[in-house]
Amino acid sequence: VADELDGDARAPARRRVVIVGGGFGGLTAARALAGADVDVTLVDRHSHHLFQPLLYQLACGGLSPAECASPIRGALRRAGNVAVLMAGAEGLDAERRELVLDRGERLPYDSLIVSCGAETSYFGRDEWSEHTFGLKTLSDAVGLRNRIYGAFEEAERAEDPRERRRWLTFVVVGGGPTGVEIAGELSIVARHTMKGYYSRIQPDQARVVLLDAGPRLTTAFSEQLSAKVAGYLAELGVTVRQGARVTAIDETGVTFEAGGTSEQIEARTVVWGAGVQAAGFTRVVAEATGAEPDRAGRLPVGEDLALAGHPEISVIGDASTLAGPGGRPLPGLATVAIQQARHLADGIRGGAPGAQGPFRYFDKGALAVVGRGKAICEIRGRELSGRPAFFTYLTVHMFYLSGGGPGHRVKVLVDWASTRVGTPQDQVIDGDLASVEATPPGARA
Amino acid sequence: VADELDGDARAPARRRVVIVGGGFGGLTAARALAGADVDVTLVDRHSHHLFQPLLYQLACGGLSPAECASPIRGALRRAGNVAVLMAGAEGLDAERRELVLDRGERLPYDSLIVSCGAETSYFGRDEWSEHTFGLKTLSDAVGLRNRIYGAFEEAERAEDPRERRRWLTFVVVGGGPTGVEIAGELSIVARHTMKGYYSRIQPDQARVVLLDAGPRLTTAFSEQLSAKVAGYLAELGVTVRQGARVTAIDETGVTFEAGGTSEQIEARTVVWGAGVQAAGFTRVVAEATGAEPDRAGRLPVGEDLALAGHPEISVIGDASTLAGPGGRPLPGLATVAIQQARHLADGIRGGAPGAQGPFRYFDKGALAVVGRGKAICEIRGRELSGRPAFFTYLTVHMFYLSGGGPGHRVKVLVDWASTRVGTPQDQVIDGDLASVEATPPGARA
Repeated sequence: VADELDGDARAPARRRVVIVGGGFGGLTAARALAGADVDVTLVDRHSHHLFQPLLYQLACGGLSPAECASPIRGALRRAGNVAVLMAGAEGLDAERRELVLDRGERLPYDSLIVSCGAETSYFGRDEWSEHTFGLKTLSDAVGLRNRIYGAFEEAERAEDPRERRRWLTFVVVGGGPTGVEIAGELSIVARHTMKGYYSRIQPDQARVVLLDAGPRLTTAFSEQLSAKVAGYLAELGVTVRQGARVTAIDETGVTFEAGGTSEQIEARTVVWGAGVQAAGFTRVVAEATGAEPDRAGRLPVGEDLALAGHPEISVIGDASTLAGPGGRPLPGLATVAIQQARHLADGIRGGAPGAQGPFRYFDKGALAVVGRGKAICEIRGRELSGRPAFFTYLTVHMFYLSGGGPGHRVKVLVDWASTRVGTPQDQVIDGDLASVEATPPGARA
Repeated sequence: VADELDGDARAPARRRVVIVGGGFGGLTAARALAGADVDVTLVDRHSHHLFQPLLYQLACGGLSPAECASPIRGALRRAGNVAVLMAGAEGLDAERRELVLDRGERLPYDSLIVSCGAETSYFGRDEWSEHTFGLKTLSDAVGLRNRIYGAFEEAERAEDPRERRRWLTFVVVGGGPTGVEIAGELSIVARHTMKGYYSRIQPDQARVVLLDAGPRLTTAFSEQLSAKVAGYLAELGVTVRQGARVTAIDETGVTFEAGGTSEQIEARTVVWGAGVQAAGFTRVVAEATGAEPDRAGRLPVGEDLALAGHPEISVIGDASTLAGPGGRPLPGLATVAIQQARHLADGIRGGAPGAQGPFRYFDKGALAVVGRGKAICEIRGRELSGRPAFFTYLTVHMFYLSGGGPGHRVKVLVDWASTRVGTPQDQVIDGDLASVEATPPGARA
């Protein structure tokens, strides 16, 4: 402490930037501020940056946890002006400009960047979380992997045919990219990967059912691409039910209404890919600043990415909502958070408390992958599907995969893309682990 | 069931072999019985075979779980007469010759092979398990990894210098190969891997203390090799305390007596490598058969590897005790279990309920590794140390690494051996996971 005071006395006070969250937005902001004339502290509950678009691969055994996540410290090792703190952000004193951590420590800031991301939303039916598997965190994905592979073991052991069928039925709720990707991959695992390993069961008797409330899958894409996706899923053996509104989920299965009648599917494994909401810290920010979150908990920001009346508090990525061209809110994509973070860092480097000038989103398009070698993609009005879309997907992911440096990125994607049916990369489940979640920082960066 | 009855009616009844445990002994027995005129069922609580000698590397972040374990189903895929059941063995009806599983199912057997291995022993001080980390299971190793890397995060966050010192102090209890290996690797992690990643702490201020109750380390080796090990550890910065008898362990540290005085070391992380005992299922077997386990819970068997009066019940590996040449019990090594399993399978293939002829152990020596590139090794009276011993270690481990086929073995060992200081292979911790422990069988085999 004495040292720090001496330091303060000698040098003019440097501006302090505090970043909440080490996802795409937060990590990009910290990197973009490396070497700038500010002191940066990045706070995250976890020590790793997560590459969420590959989580479904982890859940299905195609990638290992270390291939979907990289240590935040590793990515920021050379940034001498950036400190990392593995801690939860729990309070905000907007008047004194202090972030309050989960052990009561206070971090004063001149600029606060809220990039805490999104979490699974059950639209008010939180009790469903007990009987479903979300897919937003590393623990979610490893838990789902345990369940998927455990389900085949349970089916092998079951004496009762009905119970066996329950264990071999997998229901995915939600027809967005996450639901589509996990349903396709699950069907590959059941029909190909598991073949020949069991004595009593035929794993390809497993059923994968995708329930979607809307009239067509992946509504962010055109009707034509949606139809392609439906075709790919049918080829993979996935049963898709459109217009299916889930009304109940318990340990025996899912009940839903479709076409005016109620049906039940008995299943032990239900994956929830139907919705997300902004992470809980946004509620803290809303209370402290008077900002009014939307129905999904997102904080409205202006074109300067700041909260109204608080130019020193910026909110980016999935935690925020901002109207794009034509008034439609910007999509919840990594590219949005990354571009916002860079724009913000430019402003702070220029001496402002936040962004300088309005943020303009450069639309890089959207992608979804179905099984191996098939994908859909839409880039500035152009549409791709099948293999060309798949290779675009690979290229884009290689570009954005954070952490490990080019060699690591190539390895992960080659591992994943070259994984043939029947040879998942990471097939060992770790069992019940300690609750500390930490990451060795001396990593691949 | 109807099908099975039909089958029984057509073919003469085949002998049924039940194996408890998928470790080195059980898996070797199952493989050696593949294609034999018997029906084999291998029962294990976990779906993976664990390569225990590399667990300390997993704990220190040098290897991933998938590199230390392989799916049992994968290793037995081509064995059409071998079924695998992921279940716990909880009872034994020795008269009716039935193994009882944890849901009450009964597995009738003509031959029973007990190869349930060993677990951590606290010599009657089971309360110490709450404040220490064992190193026998995959969960143990992942839990310890979380703690080790979490400890540096906690130290970075600690405001109180004394608390910070506690988080940066690591105590290892036990001077056998496990204790020596983990102490050496821990010191490398602290002094090299973590360097440069933190703002407030200097990770190389971390202390690693190895407490050994005896007069010298690794007593299974000669005095000369013990001295080498002590020298290697000193080079790595590990403090070794000989003649240190632990008297208390709690959340603040370890108390021990040495040279007639009592000392306390304040430490948040204590690794227990001081003792093992036979796994709990041996007690079930003892009760059902009247066998009398030794102090470490091991069941005494004759040269035919069977329990006295029960030629149909064989016990191999760490679950058993058998006098070797000179009357000393055979050591608790994978090679012993593997050789016993093969001998047993030969007898069963020949029509006997167990082994035919006395088991003779072919001593392949013992090995321990200290840090990178240094090891000690003793093979039939010949001693090696330093780099030659290290390369012997690599070769031997490559040979015995089960599961992944030659390519996988080479990959794991190259990964491990080539991991330079500062680049652990698997640095992502998975957080709190579901409790089902399963393994995708469509594996690398």
